[in-house]
Amino acid sequence: METFGIHSLDHLITVFGKLPGIGRKSAQRLAMFILKSDPEYAAELSAAIGDVKSRIHFCKRCFNLAEEELCPICQDTRRDQQKICVVEEVIDIMAIESSREYNGLYHVLGGVISPLQGVMPDDLHIKELMERVQQGSVREILLAINPSTEGEATMIYIARLFKALNIRITRIASGIPLGSHLEFLDTATIGRAIMARQDL
Amino acid sequence: METFGIHSLDHLITVFGKLPGIGRKSAQRLAMFILKSDPEYAAELSAAIGDVKSRIHFCKRCFNLAEEELCPICQDTRRDQQKICVVEEVIDIMAIESSREYNGLYHVLGGVISPLQGVMPDDLHIKELMERVQQGSVREILLAINPSTEGEATMIYIARLFKALNIRITRIASGIPLGSHLEFLDTATIGRAIMARQDL
Repeated sequence: METFGIHSLDHLITVFGKLPGIGRKSAQRLAMFILKSDPEYAAELSAAIGDVKSRIHFCKRCFNLAEEELCPICQDTRRDQQKICVVEEVIDIMAIESSREYNGLYHVLGGVISPLQGVMPDDLHIKELMERVQQGSVREILLAINPSTEGEATMIYIARLFKALNIRITRIASGIPLGSHLEFLDTATIGRAIMARQDL
Repeated sequence: METFGIHSLDHLITVFGKLPGIGRKSAQRLAMFILKSDPEYAAELSAAIGDVKSRIHFCKRCFNLAEEELCPICQDTRRDQQKICVVEEVIDIMAIESSREYNGLYHVLGGVISPLQGVMPDDLHIKELMERVQQGSVREILLAINPSTEGEATMIYIARLFKALNIRITRIASGIPLGSHLEFLDTATIGRAIMARQDL
């Protein structure tokens, strides 16, 4: 692939090209856009990238993203402090928040148990979840882990671990997504939906 | 659309979302990638954006991009100094360079004549091209302007303007692209290819 022969531009194309989903052509288009953009926009983008790296860390309590010690959700006293929704990653919190069906707190595990990939329970934030529950005010743990093989195993592991603590442990339902067609779904999802069939 | 409620992250998503071809979801993915990336990568991207804006300007002679007074092509004494290829925009230079079929110099017009959009000959770098030709060493001007209606008109305008100067004026051929099928091509392209048919 030809380059422009302009060092700083070629370098920006290379660096843009390392972003996910950005190929060589897209990186070129982005770099040319930056080149032609208002200096204010370029300065804003440059600063915004730096700010994200310098200002954001993990919430001390739930491991969500936070700019202060606690994340906005943990700081929000209007939320139900008796429920904790357990998710794999921070991005899952946003998906659940978008549904507007949940008003409790969260706890980010940082992954799922996967011995094959060397991820053991101690590598996840499970003991921090235990500490939160042992402080006493939690009444329900909702497991919202992605239903992969490892995710299922992780949910079972956590359910067993917390059963002794006399709290309600639930998991989000698996089944047929709204708006989908049975003919296009995988058999495992259909099988699960039949097993979990509900009385009407 | 839900936001993360984390100011610097939401801001970065907004700023990424202004890039061409980057929608809200892509901007989120890019921002999360930055968040998780090595600090070195984020610093490099941030700096590379700033460098492009501060270091690059237009070549004093041909209006290509340059970090020095002249662009790398104008500086390259091995290139044929008797040929000037006239293009609309800087990006066209790269497309022609990729073909490896041209070894002369360039001249970027900065657009095409378009009275409807208020672009008149004096708004383009035509007089600078005239000055280059009048200095005497140029023997051929190759017009490589995109064959739109305005592009055609611009090529005709320049050809007439330079005809008096006793140099060869050529234009890149219009016709059937290599690898394409006649059945899928527009009639104007086919008509042009027939008009410009070549003896074998």
